[in-house]
Amino acid sequence: MQSLDDRPHVGIGLVGSGFMGRCQANAFASVAGLFDVPVVPVKSVIADATPQLAMKAARDLGFERFTEDWHDLVEDDSIGIVAITAPNVLHEPIALAAIAAGKTVYCEKPLSTTADSARVMAEAAEAAGVVTSVAFGFIHNPLIRFARHLIRDGEIGEVTGFRGRHAENYMASPDAPHSFRTDPAGGGALADIGSHILCLARFLVGPVSEVMGEQRTIFPTRPIAAGSADRAPVDVDDMTSALLRFDTGATGSIEANWAATGRTLDLSFEITGTHGAIHFSQERMNELHLYRAAGPASGFTKIESGPEHPPYGQFCPAPGHQLGFNDLKVIEVAELLTAHSGGPSRAPDFREALNVQLTVDAISVSSRNKSWVAVGN
Amino acid sequence: MQSLDDRPHVGIGLVGSGFMGRCQANAFASVAGLFDVPVVPVKSVIADATPQLAMKAARDLGFERFTEDWHDLVEDDSIGIVAITAPNVLHEPIALAAIAAGKTVYCEKPLSTTADSARVMAEAAEAAGVVTSVAFGFIHNPLIRFARHLIRDGEIGEVTGFRGRHAENYMASPDAPHSFRTDPAGGGALADIGSHILCLARFLVGPVSEVMGEQRTIFPTRPIAAGSADRAPVDVDDMTSALLRFDTGATGSIEANWAATGRTLDLSFEITGTHGAIHFSQERMNELHLYRAAGPASGFTKIESGPEHPPYGQFCPAPGHQLGFNDLKVIEVAELLTAHSGGPSRAPDFREALNVQLTVDAISVSSRNKSWVAVGN
Amino acid sequence: MQSLDDRPHVGIGLVGSGFMGRCQANAFASVAGLFDVPVVPVKSVIADATPQLAMKAARDLGFERFTEDWHDLVEDDSIGIVAITAPNVLHEPIALAAIAAGKTVYCEKPLSTTADSARVMAEAAEAAGVVTSVAFGFIHNPLIRFARHLIRDGEIGEVTGFRGRHAENYMASPDAPHSFRTDPAGGGALADIGSHILCLARFLVGPVSEVMGEQRTIFPTRPIAAGSADRAPVDVDDMTSALLRFDTGATGSIEANWAATGRTLDLSFEITGTHGAIHFSQERMNELHLYRAAGPASGFTKIESGPEHPPYGQFCPAPGHQLGFNDLKVIEVAELLTAHSGGPSRAPDFREALNVQLTVDAISVSSRNKSWVAVGN
Amino acid sequence: MQSLDDRPHVGIGLVGSGFMGRCQANAFASVAGLFDVPVVPVKSVIADATPQLAMKAARDLGFERFTEDWHDLVEDDSIGIVAITAPNVLHEPIALAAIAAGKTVYCEKPLSTTADSARVMAEAAEAAGVVTSVAFGFIHNPLIRFARHLIRDGEIGEVTGFRGRHAENYMASPDAPHSFRTDPAGGGALADIGSHILCLARFLVGPVSEVMGEQRTIFPTRPIAAGSADRAPVDVDDMTSALLRFDTGATGSIEANWAATGRTLDLSFEITGTHGAIHFSQERMNELHLYRAAGPASGFTKIESGPEHPPYGQFCPAPGHQLGFNDLKVIEVAELLTAHSGGPSRAPDFREALNVQLTVDAISVSSRNKSWVAVGN
Repeated sequence: MQSLDDRPHVGIGLVGSGFMGRCQANAFASVAGLFDVPVVPVKSVIADATPQLAMKAARDLGFERFTEDWHDLVEDDSIGIVAITAPNVLHEPIALAAIAAGKTVYCEKPLSTTADSARVMAEAAEAAGVVTSVAFGFIHNPLIRFARHLIRDGEIGEVTGFRGRHAENYMASPDAPHSFRTDPAGGGALADIGSHILCLARFLVGPVSEVMGEQRTIFPTRPIAAGSADRAPVDVDDMTSALLRFDTGATGSIEANWAATGRTLDLSFEITGTHGAIHFSQERMNELHLYRAAGPASGFTKIESGPEHPPYGQFCPAPGHQLGFNDLKVIEVAELLTAHSGGPSRAPDFREALNVQLTVDAISVSSRNKSWVAVGN
Repeated sequence: MQSLDDRPHVGIGLVGSGFMGRCQANAFASVAGLFDVPVVPVKSVIADATPQLAMKAARDLGFERFTEDWHDLVEDDSIGIVAITAPNVLHEPIALAAIAAGKTVYCEKPLSTTADSARVMAEAAEAAGVVTSVAFGFIHNPLIRFARHLIRDGEIGEVTGFRGRHAENYMASPDAPHSFRTDPAGGGALADIGSHILCLARFLVGPVSEVMGEQRTIFPTRPIAAGSADRAPVDVDDMTSALLRFDTGATGSIEANWAATGRTLDLSFEITGTHGAIHFSQERMNELHLYRAAGPASGFTKIESGPEHPPYGQFCPAPGHQLGFNDLKVIEVAELLTAHSGGPSRAPDFREALNVQLTVDAISVSSRNKSWVAVGN
Repeated sequence: MQSLDDRPHVGIGLVGSGFMGRCQANAFASVAGLFDVPVVPVKSVIADATPQLAMKAARDLGFERFTEDWHDLVEDDSIGIVAITAPNVLHEPIALAAIAAGKTVYCEKPLSTTADSARVMAEAAEAAGVVTSVAFGFIHNPLIRFARHLIRDGEIGEVTGFRGRHAENYMASPDAPHSFRTDPAGGGALADIGSHILCLARFLVGPVSEVMGEQRTIFPTRPIAAGSADRAPVDVDDMTSALLRFDTGATGSIEANWAATGRTLDLSFEITGTHGAIHFSQERMNELHLYRAAGPASGFTKIESGPEHPPYGQFCPAPGHQLGFNDLKVIEVAELLTAHSGGPSRAPDFREALNVQLTVDAISVSSRNKSWVAVGN
Repeated sequence: MQSLDDRPHVGIGLVGSGFMGRCQANAFASVAGLFDVPVVPVKSVIADATPQLAMKAARDLGFERFTEDWHDLVEDDSIGIVAITAPNVLHEPIALAAIAAGKTVYCEKPLSTTADSARVMAEAAEAAGVVTSVAFGFIHNPLIRFARHLIRDGEIGEVTGFRGRHAENYMASPDAPHSFRTDPAGGGALADIGSHILCLARFLVGPVSEVMGEQRTIFPTRPIAAGSADRAPVDVDDMTSALLRFDTGATGSIEANWAATGRTLDLSFEITGTHGAIHFSQERMNELHLYRAAGPASGFTKIESGPEHPPYGQFCPAPGHQLGFNDLKVIEVAELLTAHSGGPSRAPDFREALNVQLTVDAISVSSRNKSWVAVGN
């Protein structure tokens, strides 16, 4: 038998080990066996709030070392990519330190708690010339990429309308407690999940120029903690509806709703064009419905994900087997590794994440002012 | 053998013999065999623009007599109910004449070309004490009635959100020509089909208090007639999106779009409540999807129309057989005959149709003024 | 005003006034307003078991006269078409009398309680040269006709497989009582509803040459009447599965199941061809799903019923409005009237109904003999 | 920072690096970060047909060493689990060698090319007391497990019917060439994919006692290799339909069809019980449709996969995110590692795989003999 190890490696430093930390760790473990990546990630260091948490995370997620101080991780010479899944308020300091250390930075959404903070981060990254990526994972669905190709290739003509939604039910109970999600700095349904549908809208149709929003707090108070009888006022939106005007002249609307009883992940849209239309819901993430006016039979065709929609084929050579959410994360990490090595990436960078945040902010301003607001840049 | 004829009859005078005239004639022919109606309609007189058209219509649709002058019909003593399917601009004069003659009036939507005109009609009918009915037929779907019962009975808790749409594709081609539909007096996508989703919103959730709309003409010119090379400017909307605030505090949005490539009749909504949710599309008009937070299994239940949803059982004693659009018209006519005989009706009357029109108008004003507008009454 | 009555008329004599009697009466009332039929049906005479029932039926369903003796009706000179919705055991004597009287005969399915009886009826009709029609109404769905055209035109290549089902739940309770449905003469799930899917199989793919069936009585006893504590053995099948070989070489299977908990009318099939496939369920009777290997996008296209699928346009000039079960009955009656006047008909005649019954019988013999059985003719 | 490595490890030896080899490698890389497994797998050795293939596979899939001789791998002391994804004809010799060496054996389906061979393998494993697992991965879908719990808990009453199918289109072209799939030793649609639906039938309903099958070769010849003009006869089935009788008395049918134009992975079933029903298709693998006769609202409820369906929560703490095929493989490997450490496993072992193969064989015999055949054991 012969031993083998010939590809370049890159050390990963992961800050945080919650839902998204676990997802990222899994993606780093899987990616090199599925994609022909230019560098092989090594799960080097994980940081969490306490030594105990960090040690457990390292053990559970397969990192070589751990620390309770993210500064150690950022400054570690073995680390090439800093992955941030820490609370939103820490995104800026960690990212700025990582940028200063010349690392590639991979950050969960939202990029930061305010657009000003996000702008600082984007400008620092651009000044330093480091690679950045923000985890709006749903756009990495091969069918979403396929939709983008269809639209760019003119398959549905000129886009006239976009109707989107991100609806979940995780805050549908008035007894769902306060958390970072209800912190006015970066919280609320629009910022938390509406950002996904806005990111998709930009990815598929282009920049949004003007917005008119209506934000609403359905439950005026929530328990201060799970199970607590003490309740505190809620200062963020449970539900936002907004009208959109795109740079292209297309118009439409979105809804962000985390009190959408019965909905688990209705991240959905219909894009209408002069010669066709596309509709999609994350609830059936392996299906894209395409209508072409020029087609031989009238009606929407249910296109199932398959190898003809890259990079599906990296996971499976046959259609019908289907991808899941964690696979989207693997694709995101493959893009990250390519970008880290100087290649192109389809993932939103800090600048794009800032643009999403500016759209979110414009909707909030619009709601307060009860008027149309131009999206800043 | 014995002959039989014992129920009271009512003479029907139908003005117009287009799509909706045919639908109504069919409903009048069917209703007494399916419903235990208090009066049996007799297809007495039909009026159309010329003697030739009127004669052909009478023959095809089974009317006893015909006329090219609707005044004759309105004044005919044998006529108890005047049914108006004439062009929208004629609704007011015909209806006012019928009201003056003390007839029950059954009018296609929209009630008239302006809210002022509609108000004149509603007030005249109320002053005269005649029965009126406006043909927003989709609300007669037994599953829509069932949805209303569910909501009224608190099965989904307090309604928090309404997201509705009426999208069709009959004007999706830039070469679809001008017609009454594009006449600024009563035309445009919002007035033509948006009125259906607004009527449903009112029927299920209640009055809309404030609106913020965005109307848009996608195709700035259209042929002056089918196949013509001459094109004239379009002054009505092809697509309207609007934010809604209901009297109850619920919020939401609607879209009206007659350029919705790929959509034949996506009259659809999702109603979200604190304890449940309902979604429906006319595309699958025999299905209602209900989520109940308290249910034993998590997920939307696909409820198929059946005899447990009156008046489905009038058509068929077994579930699964399904109703079609023309059956909704029969239900509408059964309601009309009941109301004509002094009974209650679930059908919108002239006042309700005026309220729908006022909501349409408020959205138009809002779009021009770029601000929220209160709905008049 | 002018009076009008110029088309030839034909008197209808309807025997029976249950579910299907009402359906037929409604269809006779509607058809002339929707179709350009060669003769206008007149609801002349209705017969039912007692004078009281017959009088009520005449009144409710709009017949001119009534009788408790179907012989009177059959012999009535004003009657051109005898419509039979009486119990299955009466189909043969009524039909033979009507044939002897030279009437057109329109009979509910099954044609009779045994294949021998059905053969007597078919041969008598052929010898007399009268027009016959048997009410397998589901094949009149415009989308089923469209499917037949697609298949005949080679759009899915050579048909290789047929997988069909007719599943309902009306006998799913062990306490659903005995009735004509459980009478060994003509009863059981296969005869009652399996005949529909076999009729569709023949309509779309062609004659079935050999069968291998498995019939099963799930509930060995049932109450002798609704609510009765007395139970009697059941001698018919609740559920039948069968393998099929078609004359063309295609193979497949069907299931007939009236104890299919949760299913209201899953009359469904998938037809697989060498270049395409079609699937359909009566549960969504306004949708046909078509796959074409040669198409530009891979996947099944959901084709919604519309005017491009005749005779949908007789009911509605626009797609999306949808047809219901009673509309299929109207189409069936339009075919009947055409055939009565010497025109062609797509409806199964007595001979075709006999062929369906022979297929049913072959499956039963196969189940008893535990072997493949050739279908007789 | 501290280094960390405290859990026991087990060396994995993987034979074969095709589709399923890649899937397995990915699962071994992911499992320890997602599941609290008792042992951490180490990708130690990979074997493939030539040194070049083996080296590339080791590099691509992250194995430490490689060999072109699987005997080396089986005998390697560092290897605790031998994973077999080699051609079917090699399953028996590799497995027997691994069993002789006392290894846990994880084998792709089918277990072997004949039931006799499979029996030899099962008996050898039982005699040696080694842990075995066969990769019928679809049963590891959390919703399939949930379905099993529902059935076992009596939620749908007594199971009366099973209607299943595994339909794909990968051999739907007459020009799809010969391969191991068309080798009479273990090939054909029934053995290749019908085994999946039979495995599911056994998992959910129980053993099948008798079968009656119809096997058919749709395309009598196929090219001897991709693109070749030379064609050779096909001796295996393209499509099989079969009737089933279960030990419990339930009856039903299955279809296996690899020429199912338009279908990518219609591994689907409907299970009917006296008080409820379940239907599922792998095409929408994150949905289970449940009907309960006792439920408050009539209709099938669409249950979306979520943390309430273990082990979904290992992948994601929130519903709606969805699993994909590769996640099922991770679950399968987690079960394998648990079994390897002496815990219980839900995965089919060699004995269960033999039972599936005996059912396949009985269907084949039945088709040849044109008679019902009892399933051996």
